[in-house]
Amino acid sequence: MTAFAFQTQATDGKARAGRLETAHGPIETPVFMPVGTAGTVKAMLPSSVKATGASIILGNTYHLMLRPGAERVEALGGLHKFMNWPGPILTDSGGFQVMSLSGLRKMTEEGVTFASHIDGHKVMLTPESSTQIQRQLDATITMAFDECTEWPAPKDKVAESMRLSMRWAGRSRSAFRAREGYGQFGIVQGGTFEDLRHESVQALTDIGFEGYAIGGLAVGEGQEEMFGVLDYAASALPADKPRYLMGVGMPSDLVGAVQRGVDMFDCVAPTRSGRNGQAFTRRGTVNLRNARHRDDPRSLDEACACPACTDYSRAYFHHLIKAKEILGAMLITWHNLHYYQELMQKMRAAILTGGLDDFAAHFHAEQAGGDIPPL
Amino acid sequence: MTAFAFQTQATDGKARAGRLETAHGPIETPVFMPVGTAGTVKAMLPSSVKATGASIILGNTYHLMLRPGAERVEALGGLHKFMNWPGPILTDSGGFQVMSLSGLRKMTEEGVTFASHIDGHKVMLTPESSTQIQRQLDATITMAFDECTEWPAPKDKVAESMRLSMRWAGRSRSAFRAREGYGQFGIVQGGTFEDLRHESVQALTDIGFEGYAIGGLAVGEGQEEMFGVLDYAASALPADKPRYLMGVGMPSDLVGAVQRGVDMFDCVAPTRSGRNGQAFTRRGTVNLRNARHRDDPRSLDEACACPACTDYSRAYFHHLIKAKEILGAMLITWHNLHYYQELMQKMRAAILTGGLDDFAAHFHAEQAGGDIPPL
Repeated sequence: MTAFAFQTQATDGKARAGRLETAHGPIETPVFMPVGTAGTVKAMLPSSVKATGASIILGNTYHLMLRPGAERVEALGGLHKFMNWPGPILTDSGGFQVMSLSGLRKMTEEGVTFASHIDGHKVMLTPESSTQIQRQLDATITMAFDECTEWPAPKDKVAESMRLSMRWAGRSRSAFRAREGYGQFGIVQGGTFEDLRHESVQALTDIGFEGYAIGGLAVGEGQEEMFGVLDYAASALPADKPRYLMGVGMPSDLVGAVQRGVDMFDCVAPTRSGRNGQAFTRRGTVNLRNARHRDDPRSLDEACACPACTDYSRAYFHHLIKAKEILGAMLITWHNLHYYQELMQKMRAAILTGGLDDFAAHFHAEQAGGDIPPL
Repeated sequence: MTAFAFQTQATDGKARAGRLETAHGPIETPVFMPVGTAGTVKAMLPSSVKATGASIILGNTYHLMLRPGAERVEALGGLHKFMNWPGPILTDSGGFQVMSLSGLRKMTEEGVTFASHIDGHKVMLTPESSTQIQRQLDATITMAFDECTEWPAPKDKVAESMRLSMRWAGRSRSAFRAREGYGQFGIVQGGTFEDLRHESVQALTDIGFEGYAIGGLAVGEGQEEMFGVLDYAASALPADKPRYLMGVGMPSDLVGAVQRGVDMFDCVAPTRSGRNGQAFTRRGTVNLRNARHRDDPRSLDEACACPACTDYSRAYFHHLIKAKEILGAMLITWHNLHYYQELMQKMRAAILTGGLDDFAAHFHAEQAGGDIPPL
């Protein structure tokens, strides 16, 4: 069996290149995890997800517990087998989705009671049940159950919420059953208040986890404020454990966060945007629904090696989107995930050679240059 | 350059195994053509379509002329390049879709004027313009423009409609520009009236085409009646040209039609059903939306080599369909196309060894046996 072990291979400023060994295979960091909400990375075959370079994906506890149900996934051999993804899977705790998706909610010290967004039936989620559900799903990385702090909120509210999450982190840890090659991450809260973030880091490291996530960001505070938090919060975390910035982000968010010492990311942006005809490229965001692409025989990005860029024209993507063809979602999602993975690989390569700041400068210049002009 | 040439390699009763050489590659018959209505076989990458064993696909003139437009497809290098399918493409003439999809229609000797189902704008389609559009699309096989005869209809109406289609067939032929490796097929009409079908065959063979289609079937007359027409209409066609039964059909339709001498087929059934969670298998049709599959860890068909059957459970398909996940459409479409291609390959192999009737008996017995019982 493989130990769940993280090793830093190189640093470049605050940035780290590392390797995380897990029961389901190794993960080279910095890493982006495609989101596979309901047991599928939307519009992608698992083999295609792998072909983009992804080594680990994320599953959503909230969605999976409601449908098909954690007991069912367990009976069917776990999420890896169920969805044909033998590699590592990180599951969130469900807390964020309870806030963003479900109906009536009631929060107590015990946990949160909510109404399913599918059929309205009442469900209670606690640190113990969230941890158990993630075990039933067979998550390689289990997340501690936390409260998603509202934003913006006054400091006393943020402190209260963070301290509840820290008590829940302790209960989540107690409920976690250690298994070789599996790990559990605690989640730092505290909003944009430095002293609260430090208090949260201290509480979590006192408990002790295999990795640490930074939660409560990318909720509307803006990139500058987010980077401000990362400036102190990322480096306050133990150097010998992976650091995961939850729900982030846009390509420039990833670059700035890696420069600040973050190792792991997840975000629905590449997949959701892909289904909406929006492509992420080295030259910025390209909206393929725009009529300027209608007669354009050129590649989305002639330097990109993904099947969408090598085999099809912008005109074809425009057509697929206008005609609401599933293949449009399939191809643009593929491109976006490929772009995200390549971005992470390039950052990793730059860290290994001490060139991350140069890479970042090049990245920002290319993004600022914008898309190729219309024909 | 390759001549557009059909060769019969073996016969078994009325059934034929053949090979059709085209400018875009060879086609072994009997063959099923997946439908790629709007420049994509829905929910499938072209490489996946090819992986199912497909050698030729169908494109719909009506859809493509309205969006993205035939001139645009031509300017972008033709349909093969546009949709990344270098193999043969057959395009229909648009006549059938005008009847089934468009709004207000006006039929004259000249052609048909109709309102686009997309934006309501008025369009006229004639034998000449249909043929030109198919050339702009770069169709390997162009279909003559015909009127889709209503069903049921009295004999005089059917005769009148068939004779109009025969005059249009002559005009379609005159408008067709011969190119090496390309061909044009005429379409036999005449409903379920044997003398009208023979009159239509005579009219078309007097004109002379590279292949002949049988139209106006699978419109509600039922399998028995359809086979009744094929009993005389298929073998009345020239033996040295391919015979194409348009818009057919269910697996048992294909078997019966091949036994009656048909070489080529197209139908939306495998792709449309795939998007609706309905799978075609050797044991009959399986509706994966049905709750009986919810906890079933078994393969859809353990003897099927497609990725859907080798890598996933019925429970997973059920989940994907309930959650309206795109991957459900992708995988079940893939399976259905794989099943159709395998069925055609098995019939071809049986014809080559003189065992088609035995194969058909085995096919019907397996279908009649039904799906595996629930767990």
